[in-house]
Amino acid sequence: MSYIAPVKDMLFAIEHLARIDQIARMPGFEEAGLDTAAAVLQECARFNEGVLAPLNAEGDVRPSSWKDGAVTTTPGFKEAYRQFIEGGWQGVQHPAEFGGQDLPKTIGAACVEILNAANLSFALAPLLTDGAIEALLTAGSDELKAVYLEKLVSGQWTGTMNLTEPQAGSDLALVRTRAEPQGDGSYKVFGTKIFITYGEHDMAENIVHLVLARVPGAPEGVKGISLFVVPKFLVNADGGLGARNDVHCVSIEHKLGIKASPTAVLQYGDGTAASIADSAGPGAVGYLVGEENRGLEYMFIMMNAARYAVGMQGIAVAERAYQRAVAYARERVQSRPVDGSLAGSAPIIHHPDVRRMLMTMRALTEGCRAMATVAAAAYDTAHRHPDAQTRKDNQTFYEFLVPLVKGYSTEMSQEVTSLGVQVHGGMGFIEETGAAQHLRDARILTIYEGTTAIQANDLVGRKTMRDGGTVARALAGRIEQTEAQLRASGSAAALAMAARLASARAAYLEVVGYITALDARQHINAVFAGSVPYLMLAGNLVAGWQMARALLVAQERAGQEEDAAFMQAKITTAQFYAEHILTRAPALRDAIVHGGESACALALEAF
Amino acid sequence: MSYIAPVKDMLFAIEHLARIDQIARMPGFEEAGLDTAAAVLQECARFNEGVLAPLNAEGDVRPSSWKDGAVTTTPGFKEAYRQFIEGGWQGVQHPAEFGGQDLPKTIGAACVEILNAANLSFALAPLLTDGAIEALLTAGSDELKAVYLEKLVSGQWTGTMNLTEPQAGSDLALVRTRAEPQGDGSYKVFGTKIFITYGEHDMAENIVHLVLARVPGAPEGVKGISLFVVPKFLVNADGGLGARNDVHCVSIEHKLGIKASPTAVLQYGDGTAASIADSAGPGAVGYLVGEENRGLEYMFIMMNAARYAVGMQGIAVAERAYQRAVAYARERVQSRPVDGSLAGSAPIIHHPDVRRMLMTMRALTEGCRAMATVAAAAYDTAHRHPDAQTRKDNQTFYEFLVPLVKGYSTEMSQEVTSLGVQVHGGMGFIEETGAAQHLRDARILTIYEGTTAIQANDLVGRKTMRDGGTVARALAGRIEQTEAQLRASGSAAALAMAARLASARAAYLEVVGYITALDARQHINAVFAGSVPYLMLAGNLVAGWQMARALLVAQERAGQEEDAAFMQAKITTAQFYAEHILTRAPALRDAIVHGGESACALALEAF
Repeated sequence: MSYIAPVKDMLFAIEHLARIDQIARMPGFEEAGLDTAAAVLQECARFNEGVLAPLNAEGDVRPSSWKDGAVTTTPGFKEAYRQFIEGGWQGVQHPAEFGGQDLPKTIGAACVEILNAANLSFALAPLLTDGAIEALLTAGSDELKAVYLEKLVSGQWTGTMNLTEPQAGSDLALVRTRAEPQGDGSYKVFGTKIFITYGEHDMAENIVHLVLARVPGAPEGVKGISLFVVPKFLVNADGGLGARNDVHCVSIEHKLGIKASPTAVLQYGDGTAASIADSAGPGAVGYLVGEENRGLEYMFIMMNAARYAVGMQGIAVAERAYQRAVAYARERVQSRPVDGSLAGSAPIIHHPDVRRMLMTMRALTEGCRAMATVAAAAYDTAHRHPDAQTRKDNQTFYEFLVPLVKGYSTEMSQEVTSLGVQVHGGMGFIEETGAAQHLRDARILTIYEGTTAIQANDLVGRKTMRDGGTVARALAGRIEQTEAQLRASGSAAALAMAARLASARAAYLEVVGYITALDARQHINAVFAGSVPYLMLAGNLVAGWQMARALLVAQERAGQEEDAAFMQAKITTAQFYAEHILTRAPALRDAIVHGGESACALALEAF
Repeated sequence: MSYIAPVKDMLFAIEHLARIDQIARMPGFEEAGLDTAAAVLQECARFNEGVLAPLNAEGDVRPSSWKDGAVTTTPGFKEAYRQFIEGGWQGVQHPAEFGGQDLPKTIGAACVEILNAANLSFALAPLLTDGAIEALLTAGSDELKAVYLEKLVSGQWTGTMNLTEPQAGSDLALVRTRAEPQGDGSYKVFGTKIFITYGEHDMAENIVHLVLARVPGAPEGVKGISLFVVPKFLVNADGGLGARNDVHCVSIEHKLGIKASPTAVLQYGDGTAASIADSAGPGAVGYLVGEENRGLEYMFIMMNAARYAVGMQGIAVAERAYQRAVAYARERVQSRPVDGSLAGSAPIIHHPDVRRMLMTMRALTEGCRAMATVAAAAYDTAHRHPDAQTRKDNQTFYEFLVPLVKGYSTEMSQEVTSLGVQVHGGMGFIEETGAAQHLRDARILTIYEGTTAIQANDLVGRKTMRDGGTVARALAGRIEQTEAQLRASGSAAALAMAARLASARAAYLEVVGYITALDARQHINAVFAGSVPYLMLAGNLVAGWQMARALLVAQERAGQEEDAAFMQAKITTAQFYAEHILTRAPALRDAIVHGGESACALALEAF
């Protein structure tokens, strides 16, 4: 099944929800108006629809494979990657100084969605490279930047993030990989890292690993972790590639999904490789990023970028699943419509439950896209707005939204891809149909770059408890304003939305009150048992709020003939979101506020 | 990971919720009291834990394979099947007249759960044989019964159900397979059937296909469908096997899950098989079951049995996923508990969100098991109670519950198996861990034997609209009585349950009112758009009601020392169900009653 990038929907969100006109007034973004967005997205769509989307199923059938330390990617990936870097797609959001296009995240995020919808497994290579670039831009020395950034921004080299070890998944305090300083300012790295996405592959000539490790004498726990650059091939003074470094891929994982994306176990410093320069001895040569023991801080910068991107992956795979389900529902003929509107068997899109499933898929995807686009605009504003207070407010807003974009969008992608299978009936269970691949691919999204629970801990702890709920409540205040606009508009759809938004907002505020109550620390287990439901409630609400804003815009424009059908669809989808998705909010409130104790009450031995 | 059958939980439901003592008073069930139940389940557990559970992962890694029309099952399956039939497990619920044990469904259903939890793919062979037995018992001539039933009840031969054709999935009106009468009372069957579970395999010496087909001149649509027995090998007068019949497996499917279970494409009457008796000519020899053109009616009998069994599959796979997740959560050490109860990193079962996930898995599984056990008791009572009115009432109650057992239990199995993956974090995405297999296996359950939407159509149309909601409302009345008992008991858990049950019941009654309103036919699409949410609400409510009954029993018995911990766990799990699962009900009501129009409002071309 072909994929068609929803460029019109994206541009609607970019224009009306993210207000690209305001972003284009900020220094450095003067060229990045709606016209640029449209041109970039159309070109991005053309490339991804044509080159990467057709390779998606192939990657599932012929995954990347490992032999003797080398990884061969799915047939076609290498050539597609060449075209990807030729098109300059790696550099979309990166500084012009290093060869990038320096476009706002508001536009770049849509490119990320298109890339991931076309081919989630492929897109992980650029996603990780983005993270490495981010870390080096933030904390790398001028020397490191000079050696690595241009090659990464062009995509000539790819990047990886090396956090996880067998005993250290979410808990980085347990990291054991060690880095020993050498006389020359470099380090030798020793240890095993697992779950390293594109940790080894054949698409680029070098791989730049960003690795968490401990230096001798470092403090215990997360305060003793440093960040290192460890290239697969050492880089000569002239920028050319030198000796093979002592980091090796000892295996790749056999996974439920994203099978084309190699998930590597990397061994640092086992010294067994014949290719090591004789004089070098064992140990992978690494270079400190920033200062010792501040690695976690830098890694969080990468992770925040990556978390947002994983949220986009959720939206992307949901969109792809939705398109596939719609195509099947138009084509598959079964049973007469219950309303008697057709005499014989009809395409299943005529059946109310299929409509409900497709609308659920559509509304969830659109709502999360709207939320993510607005978050991207906040990011851009936080980085480029001339006014310091505006920057600060937007940074705070963005940081509040990141766990929602990551957590809620990826959780919704489970629901959407599963509905995608269901729409197909028995054919959905047959692998050749393709619907099941999206479900399998999506299943990692609520796990990597921090599980939903990790996102929810962030939301409860750092983003809500720490400031006593100030930011959380301010958000509710903005939503209340939208409700007033909806009521003023007076249409049936707007009034339905206003009512559901108000009820979801009330539920949300009650939860914020519960989490930030003075006695919350007294029943902290109960509070954290509600963390994921709180994230789901907040994500639902914020996405619904953006659907409400879209509804208001669409109502104004529905009179303009050329876009009438498009705008009417926005209104209908928003109303569906209000009546079928926002309505879930009070149930979450009840579970959080009243169910915290029962969630933790069962005796351990009774499980 | 090993599987331990939850025999104690099952016996609790059988004793206290299904009231096996009352069933054992009915004619023919005099031996089937609690002691028998305990003995049978313990033996069943021993066999399945030891023989079939260890083959479950093997079946996923080495699926059944097809070559030249023959299917080779997973290594070990053939021998395990031999042991299965030697143990007499196929005959548990079937008449003693044909060699069965004639046990009540109340006990047999628990055996079905254990078998499916041990090995879902394996269990499908007996499940389909059960269906074939049911059809022959109901509608088969004495001659057909004499030839086939004993062999099927012993498990020496297996059975299949042949409904689906490429153009006819849920819509049996589209069936095209034809059956031509021969002079001798037999028929020749021609056509292609797809999705035939265990349509070909090597575990039994013969396969008895039950096939829907049209006789010449039959009416169009579902009123022109007849049911035939078509054996793989013809049966000689002495009961021995004769010539190979002209039905052949042309391929098996490559599926998302239940990979060891061969899903066959069967070709009837292509006449190409060398093994056909020379004189026979093309066409698969078949024998009419019952009367011509009444096939759908008979098939519904099989399907109702099969639908209940698929509901048990949902409960079974959920239980297995739960056990695996608990084991991992006890063992995997990550991060300090948020309440500071342990100084260092702790097993993740100490983290509140992991507890919430495990409790959700546990409560959903236990709730659905309770509902299914009570449904089984209604079935037994409907068949064996001496009083005609009691039989009738129980039949009505059972028929109302079947779509809930099938629809709600299988939908909940999606949530539970997905949570099972989530509890494992990154390891959950690695196939060798085993958590992902349960998710993949479970994904067919909401589809086969009628999708959730088909169950929901049945619930809305035949079970609710047809009698104006009488049965649906009577059920609510019984729930109200349980609420009164809960309030009378006065404990905190009972009061919490009473409140949530009352609120869910009110939501349910509002929906029943909406569906049965006089003007419902005027907005029939909107009503049916709410069909699946209604099924989910009703299933949630009925399972919650049974959890409430369990809570009342457990409170009475919590004082008895030997069972205090077990009973306390029942109370805690019930309270969790009330506060985290029953709380979902009002959201469904809102979506159904207010969201019907928006579900169907989007213009077809706007998708």
